[in-house]
Parts: sequence; structure tokens; C-alpha cells
Amino acid sequence: MKAAVFHAAHQPLAIEEIPTPAPSAGEVLVKVAGCGVCHTDLHYIDHDVPTFKKPPLVLGHEVSGTIAGLGAGVTQWKEGARVLLPAVYGCGQCAMCRTGRENICEKMVMFGNNADGGYAEYMLAPAKDVIALPDELPLVESSVIADAVTTPYHAVVNRGRVKPGDSVVVVGCGGIGLNLIQVAAAVGARVIAVDIIASKLDWAKKFGAQATINAKEVERVDKEVRKLTGGGGADIGFEAIGNPATQAQTFACLRAGGRFVAVGYSDKPMTLDSGRVMYREMEIVGSLGCRAVDYPRVLELARQGRIKVKELVTAQFPLDQINAAFDTLRAGEGIRSVIVP
Amino acid sequence: MKAAVFHAAHQPLAIEEIPTPAPSAGEVLVKVAGCGVCHTDLHYIDHDVPTFKKPPLVLGHEVSGTIAGLGAGVTQWKEGARVLLPAVYGCGQCAMCRTGRENICEKMVMFGNNADGGYAEYMLAPAKDVIALPDELPLVESSVIADAVTTPYHAVVNRGRVKPGDSVVVVGCGGIGLNLIQVAAAVGARVIAVDIIASKLDWAKKFGAQATINAKEVERVDKEVRKLTGGGGADIGFEAIGNPATQAQTFACLRAGGRFVAVGYSDKPMTLDSGRVMYREMEIVGSLGCRAVDYPRVLELARQGRIKVKELVTAQFPLDQINAAFDTLRAGEGIRSVIVP
Amino acid sequence: MKAAVFHAAHQPLAIEEIPTPAPSAGEVLVKVAGCGVCHTDLHYIDHDVPTFKKPPLVLGHEVSGTIAGLGAGVTQWKEGARVLLPAVYGCGQCAMCRTGRENICEKMVMFGNNADGGYAEYMLAPAKDVIALPDELPLVESSVIADAVTTPYHAVVNRGRVKPGDSVVVVGCGGIGLNLIQVAAAVGARVIAVDIIASKLDWAKKFGAQATINAKEVERVDKEVRKLTGGGGADIGFEAIGNPATQAQTFACLRAGGRFVAVGYSDKPMTLDSGRVMYREMEIVGSLGCRAVDYPRVLELARQGRIKVKELVTAQFPLDQINAAFDTLRAGEGIRSVIVP
Amino acid sequence: MKAAVFHAAHQPLAIEEIPTPAPSAGEVLVKVAGCGVCHTDLHYIDHDVPTFKKPPLVLGHEVSGTIAGLGAGVTQWKEGARVLLPAVYGCGQCAMCRTGRENICEKMVMFGNNADGGYAEYMLAPAKDVIALPDELPLVESSVIADAVTTPYHAVVNRGRVKPGDSVVVVGCGGIGLNLIQVAAAVGARVIAVDIIASKLDWAKKFGAQATINAKEVERVDKEVRKLTGGGGADIGFEAIGNPATQAQTFACLRAGGRFVAVGYSDKPMTLDSGRVMYREMEIVGSLGCRAVDYPRVLELARQGRIKVKELVTAQFPLDQINAAFDTLRAGEGIRSVIVP
Repeated sequence: MKAAVFHAAHQPLAIEEIPTPAPSAGEVLVKVAGCGVCHTDLHYIDHDVPTFKKPPLVLGHEVSGTIAGLGAGVTQWKEGARVLLPAVYGCGQCAMCRTGRENICEKMVMFGNNADGGYAEYMLAPAKDVIALPDELPLVESSVIADAVTTPYHAVVNRGRVKPGDSVVVVGCGGIGLNLIQVAAAVGARVIAVDIIASKLDWAKKFGAQATINAKEVERVDKEVRKLTGGGGADIGFEAIGNPATQAQTFACLRAGGRFVAVGYSDKPMTLDSGRVMYREMEIVGSLGCRAVDYPRVLELARQGRIKVKELVTAQFPLDQINAAFDTLRAGEGIRSVIVP
Repeated sequence: MKAAVFHAAHQPLAIEEIPTPAPSAGEVLVKVAGCGVCHTDLHYIDHDVPTFKKPPLVLGHEVSGTIAGLGAGVTQWKEGARVLLPAVYGCGQCAMCRTGRENICEKMVMFGNNADGGYAEYMLAPAKDVIALPDELPLVESSVIADAVTTPYHAVVNRGRVKPGDSVVVVGCGGIGLNLIQVAAAVGARVIAVDIIASKLDWAKKFGAQATINAKEVERVDKEVRKLTGGGGADIGFEAIGNPATQAQTFACLRAGGRFVAVGYSDKPMTLDSGRVMYREMEIVGSLGCRAVDYPRVLELARQGRIKVKELVTAQFPLDQINAAFDTLRAGEGIRSVIVP
Repeated sequence: MKAAVFHAAHQPLAIEEIPTPAPSAGEVLVKVAGCGVCHTDLHYIDHDVPTFKKPPLVLGHEVSGTIAGLGAGVTQWKEGARVLLPAVYGCGQCAMCRTGRENICEKMVMFGNNADGGYAEYMLAPAKDVIALPDELPLVESSVIADAVTTPYHAVVNRGRVKPGDSVVVVGCGGIGLNLIQVAAAVGARVIAVDIIASKLDWAKKFGAQATINAKEVERVDKEVRKLTGGGGADIGFEAIGNPATQAQTFACLRAGGRFVAVGYSDKPMTLDSGRVMYREMEIVGSLGCRAVDYPRVLELARQGRIKVKELVTAQFPLDQINAAFDTLRAGEGIRSVIVP
Repeated sequence: MKAAVFHAAHQPLAIEEIPTPAPSAGEVLVKVAGCGVCHTDLHYIDHDVPTFKKPPLVLGHEVSGTIAGLGAGVTQWKEGARVLLPAVYGCGQCAMCRTGRENICEKMVMFGNNADGGYAEYMLAPAKDVIALPDELPLVESSVIADAVTTPYHAVVNRGRVKPGDSVVVVGCGGIGLNLIQVAAAVGARVIAVDIIASKLDWAKKFGAQATINAKEVERVDKEVRKLTGGGGADIGFEAIGNPATQAQTFACLRAGGRFVAVGYSDKPMTLDSGRVMYREMEIVGSLGCRAVDYPRVLELARQGRIKVKELVTAQFPLDQINAAFDTLRAGEGIRSVIVP
């Protein structure tokens, strides 16, 4: 089969012919229909972030496709079934998995990192982790639901615990931020979007933000948020960039007893107003990925049209143009590209 | 009546004769039996922290006593009833009060700060906020339950959400720390106590710590905690000092998905490992005071002997020696002193 | 002022001229714009259910209007402000109120039951309980939000704890049922509506049901629900009728670990499959009214257009035709009538 | 090896020599030290309750022992390690397992029911589900922790969500009831025990009940509970018998907003006061077994001496006298017998 293979950082992926893998017991073979192009892949290629499986490795963790082969003992799937793969799955045995937190399983497997991923014609996945894709959803574009939409879903629903009528501020309106906005809006929140790029704020409105703030055009974002929330501040804030300054800014926008959700990754320290944490009983929580068990919930929201999927995919590339797709990502163009092998 | 009156910072409290207050409608007059001596009072006296009611003010917010007079319309109390006063009470009308969070009510009233407190023979309190003191508990010493025990109760039960069998680390074994230890132990946690003073760690053991770590004698506290918890780290950590270094230390002791509770006040920034907050889905929560509605729960634990009260009171002073009691506090002697007017 | 006064059961309300009330300290006078006509009122009139305030009493607990007068000490309201009144408010002092459950306060006050209500030109309310009505919402029709929409909101969000992507079954598509449907749909659930009247099921679809079941046309409702939910049953079920047979039916529709919410009042015993309650760890919870503190959340959903308000009001009557409005209710016509004094 | 084999209902277990099983990949062989004798076994023997694995079957699901052999790929255990086996374990793959509810996994495996159990010299178990037994706990007697203590732990902590200071009523003071009492007391509740046999109420006190009620000696149990709880009723009630009358009685003892936990199995309908369920927002929840992931928490409580283990074991029998042990159970003698193969 044809695959885009990662051999080492700082060089393009190599389009190669490699053996089509055969499913072991409990596995399925998936014919890849679409695979979303994500910043995480770029970290391996451009920034020397090491992968868990040593290269050569097929990257790609946002995969939709159809079942193309069944390993021994797999009875719950039929060939041809339309499926979505979770970006990550847990071991099912550790204390985290057993308490409903498989997304922070210490032995978790990420496609395109611990195991070969979706920048190829075919890939393997454990039958137990494969998700049925409803007929109403488009096969190719739905690939981006894995990660690009599910990570925000987990952040909003499980970590942010956003309730209908909550006022929510989202700082950073890139791919993750836009989906934080649309998921929060879909569950009934009033969303205030913050960015410094006008076009991103336009997108934010299209994805459900009730109000936007261009941080370049105001003196203090927290004051604007307080004005928009009747003085008290937002109930919950999401930082989707991973920057100490915007983390502090997001935190400053919150009411007493509010919740700050760290969604963007940062390798610098997070610095918070300690007195406010204690005296106002603030909460700060991290959010990572999404449990496979929650994927059907996200698909249901998409099926009902409460969250947009097609609109997230602003470009499609065949497999052999994958390096051009990464150039688009490097340039910050569009929302999400999908590779169609 | 006789009272110790605060006129200004940096001078001793003045023992004066002032009018005994008369209860208005909905209020009771309380004859003070004991009033705990707390660092918060010292902040007004020594550190220029402003009080909400302008001096002259009677300080003191850990008060036990007996009902000595009833304002109009008060029917739920009888003269002579043994009572405990909450350190703080809410307005009962704001969104925080109405969602069960009166301890962060923006209009909350603190005795000895917003209103005259317990360093006097008598004081006033709203009838609705007075708590019945069970017969089994000693009248004078139980005063310190207000704040010194209830604040740790709230931190452990409501904010830390400690569950039986949890491993808990408490950093700082002063008055608050010792009570965090004994409340956490009383609800079934395995407590590891950390301090740099051997005598405090001895107390920690007496109050229920299963293990102690002298931070001066080990290279890294977090490594010791990991050893004691089978490698993963503690489930929940409480910092009871209010210091950026011990905050970071406490945070470092926690397992993936663990919870850090900020109990000690600090006016410096809290600096956390941002990557760990996000990738390990850590939680950081502040904790302030305790709701009046939880006081009977604390009293029940004391009544059953699951938490110690008498042992917390290491000195008693008559009202006119209150400044000597503050000297004891400044010297770091004992656990808690009580003024007996 | 003109008012419709309830003197005794089994006789029409009397349209009378009575003194316009004057607000005491902490109260406001509200000029009634609209007052929803509810089955609860009919229980007093037709079924001898006693009111807490002895008649003569002005009924009506779904009230919108404008501030027309301020009692002493009221500073947070201005005359002319558009407001909604909660159907019920708590004492703010008991353990239920202090733990965020004022809707089951034992001393709670219900307009048109413990105190004069909204079937009059003017009425009184405590300033602390009045809710600001957003400009985007229609003044008259919004009256029905109080109770007819807020009770379902509380049932869905606080008691049912419906999460996005949940499958939800609502049995009974009258006024309460339709609003259960639209609130559950608004927070991202997949709603299956059950009734025996085709026109109500049509409404159910208009208010957001994804599927409907006419219980008269199928052999077993629970089997149909299982088919629609992939075999396992619904996550959460709401019974909005108050009938032992439909309670058992709703319960039978649920998956293992599912939650049954009793919203409809019944004076007959509830009979459940005990083995299933235990072996499948089912939950059964009652739901009553809605906290005042949640009203702004409901208004926000309405403001965003996520829940319909105008469509709920199928008739308007002037005050002196109120008895005709009750006839409409007795006949089961329309969804909700509003009295416009 | 020697085993007590169940061939059919209504006949004694047969003491036979059968092949010692060999661990497959991922399994361990456990040398049984003790196996508790439980009513569940008696249901198969005396009451024709079918087992999932067709006989011949080795019963017994409360097992402690030592690791005696390792299947391929098992690295986390060493021979000789002291262990406890959970009575039940989940598939790790279904939605229940993945949301932290493996105790209601639809594919769950129960030792001595779906697979051979502990009434034998050796048995097999999946390595992932074996629990390390702390050195401080006695090897033989700790067997009864599995099920007899863990089921109450789950009921009290996860389903009852008992908080320190809660008032709790436990109806039925047999083996399960006594452990509900001691776990609830261990987490800081005030426990009222109800039974009709004086000797059981004596035990209840030894295991931590603060008050007891002999239901034969009072007119109405609920009135007595209200007296003991200051009028309002208990916060949480556990029914440990499985009888409609005592279920209703337990429910009647609860305060508004209280929680009723059904722990005892009943094949008759549960009949509740429907109006009270709704108007007082009561909660009714079932409780089944305990997750393997919670066993270390229970062991920690035992290790600290907060719950008693040795005292639960009132008789020990060698394997070949197992039928005599069941006679003891039939006669209602003692708390728990242990088979020592």
C-alpha cells in the first residue's frame, strides 16, 4: 500500500510503498477515507518532539474510513462499515482506565505516535476502540472529529463542566478554539471569543460565539469580559493557545468560584494570582484528549447539526501532496486540511 | 462590659469598658465563653491588613458561649443555650449563597472584621447563623472549632473531596495543617505530613498522620511521597503555608489526575508546571473558610471523638492578658490559645 | 386595582376591585404584564387542594411585568425595569437553602399560594428574588417561562443531569413534557417523545424531539425505545404525567445505570422493579420547581433562541375573561394561555 | 488438587480431586488461603438460582491467597505474593467499564459463577484484577473483605455518597448490614442501626452504630429515627434485607432531599410514596458489588484499623467440612465463615 512515512525530523514525509498490515486477533484493518492534518504531527516533523514508536512511522491520528479486514475473534464489525477511529485509546486495566479516565491512561496508545497512523491507504486498530460513523455524516470530512472536535468536547463537557446558560470565554480561535466555541455554544453556553486576528474572530462568530473581543483593540480583555457578563466575570474560561500571558489573561476574566481550563500546551510555567485562587476559590483544571467512550456523543451532536463538521475542512489533499498540506498548516491557512489517500 | 478593643495597627489591644450591645430583631446576644486566638487577628495588628469595619473594633472570630439575650422575633433559641458561632456568614441572597457557596459570598460578614467579634464579654450574632453546641463537647475549648477546624473540614471534604482510602499529603503542620491532617484521617485517608520542624511532625502523628517527612532531611519531598504511595504520587495535596516554593512542592507530590488544594494564603504568584497541569489533567482549587451549614458536621465528628478538640487548645488566657496571648502566637508556641473573658 | 380573587373551590374566580398593595422594606411592586395559566391553579379551584394562605387569595405564579414601586432599602431595581418573577422562592436560611436546594426549602413561598399572585394588575415580590428580563424576550409571553419552562430546566439540568449526546425519553407531551423535550434538545440530548395523542407528538417534533412513539400504536414502548437506542435503552427518562403505569413504562425504557426523573405528581404509589433497581444500579430522582438562581440560565437559552417561548403561548385573555382561560385548560386546548391584566 | 464441586442444586458440594488448573497468558494461579462462605453460594445450592458456567463448577468468590504460578506475559506479580481477589471483574471494553462502572459491566465475570472459584486448593485469575494484600492484614480472614466488606464500601461511598457528619440509617444488621454500619461509621457518619434481633443490634454497636432501634419494640421506626435526628430524618438510608416492607420503612426514615440505597436483593416490586419522591426530591439508587479499583481503598481502611476484619470471621472450616459451613449459614449463626483449604 501507499503511505507517507516519517523517518526523521526536519525532512518531508516520504511517499512509499509499504506492506499492507494484517489484523491480529482483536484487530480490524481500516481502509483510510480521510486523515486530518494536525499541529501534533508538525511537532514531530519540525520541532524534534520524539514519537513513542521509533521511526519509520506512519503519522496521522484523525482517521475515518471503512472496515476492510477482521482479525481473529472480531465479531462486532463487518467489512464495509463506516467508522471513525479515536486519536488515542487506553489499556483498559489501570486505575485511570477503571475510573473512567482512559484519556490519561499511562499506557495509552496514540495512532501516528505509539502505532502507525492514518497517512496511508490502510491501518490497523483494536476492534474494541473503533467507533461507528452515523450515515448522516460525511465519510471524509468526519475524520477531523477525532481530536479536533473530541478534544474540545472533553474540555467543555467533562473538564469545564459547562452548564446551559453559563458564560464562557475562549481565548485563542484556532482549530481547537473554534471547536471549543461551537461545542460550548451547542450545550447552551454564552460564548465570548478572544483573539488578535479579525478573520479568526469572524470564524468564531460563525461557529457560535455570541460576542468577540479583539485583544489588540482593547486595553484589558478581562474588563471587557466583565462588562459583557454584568460585572462578575465569566463562569468558565478556556485557554487554547498555551502561552503564560494568555493563561493569566483568561484566568483574570473569571468570576469568583470560576473554572479555568488549560487546553493549550505550554512548556513554560503557568503563573496564577495565588491570593485569588484561594480567596475566590478558583479552580484550574487541565484537559487532554477525549475518551473513546465519548466519541458517540460528539457524533450525535454532529448528526443533529448542533456542531458543524464540513465547515471545519477547508482543504483536501491526496496522500502524495501531504507535505503541501503541512505547508498550509505552517502558514496558518484555513481551519483543517484532510488527507484523502 | 469588658472588651479588648483594636484601635490601630502596631499597638496592643486596649482593655476597655464598652456598652454591652443589645440584640436587634433577628439577633441574639451571646455571652462569650471562649474565643480562639488566630493569625488573622495578628494580620490586622502587626501587618496593617485593613479591617472592613473601621476601628475601634472588637476582634475575634472563633467564639463559643451561651445565649444571653434574644432580639425581636427570635424563637429558635433560649437563654442559656450552649452555642458556637461561625467565623463568617453569608447574605443568603446572592448567586453564591443560593448555589451552596456562602463561604465566598461577596457580602459576607466576618466577626472581628466586618462586625465586632469575641474578645469581649458579650457579642451579637444573627439568630439564623448560630450553631447548637452538643453537650458532649467542652464549652470553652470548642471555640476553636470555628475556623481552626471548620476551615480544614471544608478544604478536605468540599474542596479536596477526599474519599476513604485516598492518599493525602499535607505540607505545613501548624494549626491549619494539623487540622487538615486530623480531618483527612477522620474521613479515611492515608495522610503524609510534611514540615521542617520535628516537634510539629510529632504533633502531626498524634493528630493522625500515617507517615511524616522532614523536608530538611530529604533531598526531594516529592520523591519520598512517591515512595510512600507506591510510585504514583498522592491523590490529593494540601498546602497550608502560603509559599510559592511549598506550593510547587506539594503540586509535585501528586499523581496524574491529582488535586492540589491551596489553603494557605500567599500574596506572591503561584507558579505551576503548565505542561503537567494539562497533560496529567491536574486540578488546582482554592479553599476559603467553611459554610455555616457544615458546622454541625464538624461538631458531629468532634462529638464522636473522631477529631480532637481539647488537645488543640494549648493555652488559655483571661481577657486582660490577650496581648500576652498574641505574643505566644508570634513566638509560634503551642497550637491554639483561647481567651476566656 | 383589578384582580381575579379566589374565594373558595368549585366556583369561578371573582373579578374585583381590591387595594393596590404597597411594598414594604425589601419589596418591589410589580405591574403585571402577563401571568401564565397553570394546572396548579386549577387544583385549587376544581380539586380542593388547599392553599397555604387562606382565601381570599389572588392566584397565579407565572408572572412577568415591570417594576412599579420600590420598598424601603431597595436599590438594585428601577421603576420601569422589565422583570420575571420566580414561581417560588426560599427562606435563604435553612439547610436546604444553604446547600443550593432552595427549591425544596421547607419555608418556601409560592406566589398565588402562600402570597398573592399575578392574576391582578399589581403584585408584590421580594426585591432579592426578582429576575431581570432581557430586552430580546417578549414581555407578555415570557411570563410562562416561570414554572412552565424553568421546572423542566431544573428537571433536565439539575436532576436529570442530561449531558450532550445522551439519549432521553420523555413520556407525556403536555405543557411540562414539551418543555422537557425542548430543554433536553437544547442541551444536546437525543430526545424520544412518547404520548398517545398524535397532535401532541407533532408538537413534540416541533419542540425538538428526534423521534416519537405513539404508545397506542405499539405493543411495548420500552422495546421501541431500545430499538431506537441501539438495544441498550435510554440514558435518562422523564415521566411528566404522574401515573403509576407510565412511571413503570418510563423506567422500563432505561439502560443499566440509567436515571429516571419523576416530574409528574401522583398521589398513588410508585411501583418499580426492585431487582432491576439494585442489579442494574438504576437511579430514581424526584424533581420539583426550579431555583430562582437558575432563572437567568433559562432566560439565556431563550434569548439565544435555543428554546422557544412565543410558540408556547397559544392564547391570551384579558383579566376579566380568566374563567374562560381556565375552561380552555380544562378542555386540554393549546399549550399555555396567558392572562394580560 | 482438592476442590468442593457443585454439580446440581439441592445436594451437598462434592469434595473431589480435580486437575490443578494452569494459568494461560495474562493469568495467575492462586493458592487459596481462605474463601468466605456467602449467601450467594447458598442461592445456587438451595434455591435453584442458575450459575452462568454450567456445573460442574467450583463455587466461592471471596478469596485470599498467594500467587503460585504465572501465565505468559505476567510480570507484575511474583510467586508467594499475598493477594486478594475481587469477587467480580469487568471486560474493560464496554461503555460501563469505560465510564468507571465496571461493577455493572454486562460481560462481567464472577468467580464461582462465570468461572471456577475459591472452594479449592488453587484457582485462576486474570493478573490485571488481582489485588495486593498489605502485610498488616491477616491472610485467611481477609478473604471476606472481597464482597462482604467491599460491597458495603461501594454502597456507602460511591452510591450513598455518605459525607462526614451525615446521619445514616441501616435497616438489617446481617453480614452486609454490619459492614454498611462499620464503613459508614469509618467515613464519619452517625449511624442508626435497625433490626428485630437484639443480638444483631449488639453487634451493630460493636461495629460502630451510634444508636440502635429494635423494630419490634417501637411503634414506628421512622418516628424514632426522626427523634434521633432532630426531627428531619436521616440523610441517607440503606436497606440490606431485600423486603418491600423494610424498603418502605427505610425510605420513610429520610429527610427531604435524602437518598435511599437499595443494597438487599428482592424479587418483589419496590413500592414508594410517589408524591414524596417528587415533592421532596428524594433519590433512590441501587448498589451492586464493588469495582476492583476500589479494593485497595477498602484494604487501606482495614490496614488503619478503621474497619474490623478479624471480628467478621466467626468460624473457620477445612475444605472437606464445607457443607457444615453452609449449615451454619442456613442457621443464621455467626457473621461469616471462612473455608481454609
